[in-house]
This record gives sequence, structure tokens and C-alpha cells, in this order.
Amino acid sequence: MDVARFFLVLAAILAAAKLLGELAERIGQPAVLGELVAGVLLGASALGVVPAGGVEAELIHVLAELGVVLLLFEIGLETDLKEMFRVGPAALAVAMVGVALPFAFGYFYWRYAPHAASGSGNLVSAAIFIGATLTATSVGITARVLSDLGRMSTPEARIIIGAAVIDDVLGLVILSVVSGVAAGAAITATGVATTLAVAVGFLVIAVVLGRFLAPRLFDLINRMRARYVLVVASVAFALGLAALASLAGSAMIIGAFAAGLILSGTNQFDTIEREVRPLASIFAPIFFVSVGASVNLALLVPSTPEARATLLIAGVLIVLAVIGKVAAGWAAPWTKFRRLVVGVGMVPRGEVGLIFAEIGRRSGLLGEEIFGAVLLMVMVTTFIAPPALKALFSKSSR
Amino acid sequence: MDVARFFLVLAAILAAAKLLGELAERIGQPAVLGELVAGVLLGASALGVVPAGGVEAELIHVLAELGVVLLLFEIGLETDLKEMFRVGPAALAVAMVGVALPFAFGYFYWRYAPHAASGSGNLVSAAIFIGATLTATSVGITARVLSDLGRMSTPEARIIIGAAVIDDVLGLVILSVVSGVAAGAAITATGVATTLAVAVGFLVIAVVLGRFLAPRLFDLINRMRARYVLVVASVAFALGLAALASLAGSAMIIGAFAAGLILSGTNQFDTIEREVRPLASIFAPIFFVSVGASVNLALLVPSTPEARATLLIAGVLIVLAVIGKVAAGWAAPWTKFRRLVVGVGMVPRGEVGLIFAEIGRRSGLLGEEIFGAVLLMVMVTTFIAPPALKALFSKSSR
Repeated sequence: MDVARFFLVLAAILAAAKLLGELAERIGQPAVLGELVAGVLLGASALGVVPAGGVEAELIHVLAELGVVLLLFEIGLETDLKEMFRVGPAALAVAMVGVALPFAFGYFYWRYAPHAASGSGNLVSAAIFIGATLTATSVGITARVLSDLGRMSTPEARIIIGAAVIDDVLGLVILSVVSGVAAGAAITATGVATTLAVAVGFLVIAVVLGRFLAPRLFDLINRMRARYVLVVASVAFALGLAALASLAGSAMIIGAFAAGLILSGTNQFDTIEREVRPLASIFAPIFFVSVGASVNLALLVPSTPEARATLLIAGVLIVLAVIGKVAAGWAAPWTKFRRLVVGVGMVPRGEVGLIFAEIGRRSGLLGEEIFGAVLLMVMVTTFIAPPALKALFSKSSR
Repeated sequence: MDVARFFLVLAAILAAAKLLGELAERIGQPAVLGELVAGVLLGASALGVVPAGGVEAELIHVLAELGVVLLLFEIGLETDLKEMFRVGPAALAVAMVGVALPFAFGYFYWRYAPHAASGSGNLVSAAIFIGATLTATSVGITARVLSDLGRMSTPEARIIIGAAVIDDVLGLVILSVVSGVAAGAAITATGVATTLAVAVGFLVIAVVLGRFLAPRLFDLINRMRARYVLVVASVAFALGLAALASLAGSAMIIGAFAAGLILSGTNQFDTIEREVRPLASIFAPIFFVSVGASVNLALLVPSTPEARATLLIAGVLIVLAVIGKVAAGWAAPWTKFRRLVVGVGMVPRGEVGLIFAEIGRRSGLLGEEIFGAVLLMVMVTTFIAPPALKALFSKSSR
């Protein structure tokens, strides 16, 4: 491969992300919206700058993953663990309702409502899949919006982040179930329970052990003379824990978030945070641009009957997706917080929804039209949340 | 590819680099020596942690290149352009003698001296190749050593860095010539002159134009509200200029160095330098570890007659390589500086020597034994320079 051309693509991605991010802020929107739009413009369906295949695409994928890992690591660093425990029950309730409702909506819509298109597999499997794609929450997008708006320390933000992380744990369970469905396997209670136990167990063990050991380890590292040893050790720690989480059957972002939570308890916390932030600011945009680049603009043009059918299904899915997550904001009546803000914060599906949709397409359970509709649902929920959250927050400050 | 496994490899590379770098410093050596040793240990001939093939190897290669680009960008940022002009003539003389002498040594040794092995091509072509592999200077290694030792602002360091950058320009010319030789083409004066003009022209035009335009551009960027926009813009600038240099027929590291020289004239210089440094500290070790990982330890064991022949040729090449570069220290008699320090600083061949050797091997001009000998020469010159420079500098401070 041509490294020079690849670096030029990287430079274009960074420049476009910052330019459109700036433009978004100037018109009163969160910067991440501009980065997503930059991705759409640089993507295969428009300018075609972001590579769509080959080694280059894999490289962009890895750098984007690095961006998500660094972003979740930074969010973990900035998360107050005690505050997190305080909002824990509320976040759990929001997450569970925000998974159960959209799943039920999607399942029953596909199973029982009349609709124009159908997949190649059997109806029940397809319905489970449609339901699953509606359950995801993109913690990355929402966290960036909250951080762009300077609201990371509000109770709503803590509940959203907590619920989104729990959603990722639940998402893993659902992912293993739907992957089984896609491969034709039966759903067993034992399998579901094992996946859940591994995901939760990893997070708990890592944080408990880590909060005990990491301060000692980083006190030692801090006595080393090597240049910038703290930031290098922190990044290695985040990458290592992300990888271990994935190898243990959990998700990388959960490992990265855990790494941040753990290192927020070290004495070198300030230095680590100060030096990790510019790093995350460079790689996270690559992730948001590549999410935007996966958007197919052709899906938005109702030129053929099939395209119109896709748009119709997409419209229904979007309504179900928004209602299901917004309703989750009312899931914890015993805690006081702004329920609409939390509900809207859970709406964006982002990358996780794309992963589910892609598995469904590859396995043949989702036909082209439904895949297109799911993609549209992911896009729209991802793009409407930033301005909606911004509007809700500015209403509250007036 | 498995992203989680790849992140684990990255974490291992970073941790090993910092641990062995620390160890090197504790025993009074520059940290980069420890990073090179870390690479040897993690490389294919020892633990095999650094991937030697496939997409993973390409990824490591790109990240290593990113490390070199960031390192040269940082060195450019820290370089005082006026001081550079002051040492310019001396650096030019050192560079030219440091290219001409080793080339002549290598050429005449291979052409006329009796030796055990021979390549498959004709003797003149092979001799040109051997000469070419001896001309390279690894600016990355020497710059890291000087920076590890805190001697970047000495006149010797400026001459070494200047000469090493000029060596890269000359190296490009030689590279295009030897690539032509490898492909069987005749050497033309026009071709050589064009390559030289492009390489020099790019550096001059980029720096002159850039020093005029960049301060205005970065004053504008500084007024943007996006988070960490300065560091992201700087990295995009460095990547873009590195890529442009390469596409214009020059080398990426020359573009990256030029980007640093240019941005050292902006008003936001301090912020940029502060935020780029931790970034370079994370990616540069990936480069040094991957240079170390390309070392084949089996070459050092004289178990067969072929291996002993390789060791013998390598011994001759090492002596020629060291003498040729050290002698270059006396190339500028009109300027006062410590000639042995400059000469020793030019000794490491590093990555550039490896690139030449690899082209020779692939084209069939260098047989297995000579290739092994060249590899050994590159390794030894790279590994002896850091402790030698360290010793010379500590002698001077006593």
C-alpha cells in the first residue's frame, strides 16, 4: 500500500472533521454533528476520499477503533465512580427499559404488522434481528455531544453514560444471541446467562482489582525517567484492558472505559488526563468521520418503488426507535432528573446499530430493502440526537 | 483481522519500549537503545510478538511511519532555522563527504577486493548497490540519542541533524539511481539531476512559502472554538506535507521536518510543541521497536561456512561504514565543532540502510549472504552509535 496517499487521506479526514465541526458549533450545534457530516461528504457515496475497501479501509477501521478506545478511556477518566454508583440503579432501569421496549417494538412490528418487504430467512428470526438493531445505544456519540455542550457533570449525563455502558453490556448479550440466530442456532438461557456474566464480571473484577493495584503501579511508573512515560503507560494500559475485555468475550469499549475509571484513582490522574485529551481529540474524529462515511446517500432518494418501500419501513423504524428510547427516560421514577434529556440522550444508535445491521445483511436474514431501512434508522437517530440534546439543554439554561 | 489482538500487540510494544528504555537509561545509555533491544526481543527471531507479515505487519509499518513523521515534525519544531542556516555549509560538507566516502569504500571493496560470496547480477551493479547501502544516515536514531542526552541545542547536534536531512535528500537520489540499476536501467545524468532538484526544491519552496503563509493560517485556526484544534491542525499539516513530499518524489520525513520548521514560526508554537510531544512519544517507539524487530538474531551465530563468510563480509562493511562516516566529521575545516562527535553521530544507518538492502535483495542483485552482511552492518552501526555518542558527550562534560 501507498503510505503517503494514506497520510494524505488522514490529513483530509482530520481537516474536514475540524472544519465542519467548527461550522456546526458556529450554527449552534455540537461539533460531533459536523464530524459526522464531514464523514458523509468524504464517504463512498459522495467524494469517496475515505477508503471503502482493501488494506486502507482496514487501517481506517483500526484507527477509528483506537479513537473510540481513547474516547471511552477519556470518558472513564472523567467519570466520578462514586457519582456513578449513586446513579447506578436509575441508569440500570433506563438501560433495561431502553433495550426491552425498542426490541419489543421492532419484533412485533416485523412479526405482525403488514409491511412491503421481507427477508430471505424465516419471519421470527428476521423479527428478532429487527428488534435487536433497535436496542443499541451509541455511547460515543452521546458522550461527545454532552462533552461538546459542557454538560458532562450533570446528573442527566451520568445517567446517560451509565445507561449507555450498561446498554453495551446488554448489547453484547443481544449480539451473541442474534449471531447465533444468524448462524441458525437455537437460543439457550445458559448461553445468554454466560455472556451476561462474562461482560458484567469483567467490568466488576477489572475495576475492583484495578482501583487497588493501579495507584501502586503508577506510583512506580512515575518514578521512571523515560520521557512522557505516564501517558505512554496509560495508553498501553487502556489498549491492553480493551483488548483483554474483547478476548474475554466482552467489548473493547467496556475495557477502555474501565481503564479510565481505574486510572482516575491514581495520584498521577491530572497529568494523564491532560496528555490523553489531545490524543483522543486526534483519533476520535477518525471514528466519527468513518461512521458518517458509511452512510449511503442514495438511500435517501425515493426514485424507485423499492426505494420508497425502504423509506416507508425506515420511517416506521425511526418512530419506534425514538419512542422506545425516549420512553426509557421515565424508567426510574424514584430518582429526580430531566427525563426527556435522558431519553433523547439514549436515541443515537451509531456504530453498534451498524454492526448489528451488517451481521443481518451478511447472514441473509435482512434483505437489501430492510438493511437499507435499518441503516437509515441508524443514521437518522444518530443525526437528530445532537441538535435535540442541544435544544433541550439551552431551554433549561434560560 | 482481529483488532483486539492487534491492540494487545501495540500495548506490549509500548510497555516493552518504555521498560527497556528505562533500563538503558539506568545503566547510562540513551533510551532509544533500549527501544531497539525491545524490538529485537519482540521480533520474529526471538519472541515473535511484532507481526512479521499480513495486514498486521502493514499496520505496524504505517504506525511506525506515523511515528517517524511525528518525530521529525517535533525535531523540525525544535530546530532554530537561523542556527540551521549558520551551520548550513558545514552540514552540507559533512553530508557530502559522508555519502561520497562510504560509497567509494563499498564500491571498490566489492569490485576489486577478494571476497567469499557474490550476487547473481553483474559485479558492477552489485558493487554500486553495496556502496549505496553504506551511504545512508538514520536521522531518527541520532536525533533521538541527542534528545535523550539533552544535547539537541549544541552546534554538533545542529550539524548532525542538518547533515542527516541533507543525507536523506542525497539518499533519495541514490535510491532512484540504485532502483534504476536494480531494474536494469542505465544511469543518466538528467535523471540524477531531476531527482536532486525535486528533493531540494520541495524543501526550499515548502519552507519559504510555509514560513510566510502558516503564521496567518494558524492565527485563523487559533480563533476556532473546536476542542484541541491547534494540535489536530498541526498533525494534519505534518501528515499532509509529508505525503506531498513523497508524492512530489521527495521523502516523507523531509516533508515532516519542513512542517516542523514552518510551524516553529507561528505564534501558537508553544501550544503546538507541548501537545505534539506526548503524541510523538507514543508513536516514535513503535518505529524503533519495528527497526529492532527486523534484526535476525540467527545471523549472529557462525554455525556454517556460509554464516562465517557473511560475518567476515559484515566485519569489513562495518569497518568501512564507520570510517567513512567518522571521517566526514573532518569535512568542514573552516567551522569549529567537535569533529569526532559529528562523525560518530552520522554512523547509524537505521531504516534507510534497511530499505536499500531490501531493494537489493528483491531484485536479486544481493545474494542471501551479502544481504545478511548488509543487514548486520546496518544493525551494528545503529546499535554502536548511541553508547558511543553518550560516552563522547560525557567525556566533554567532565
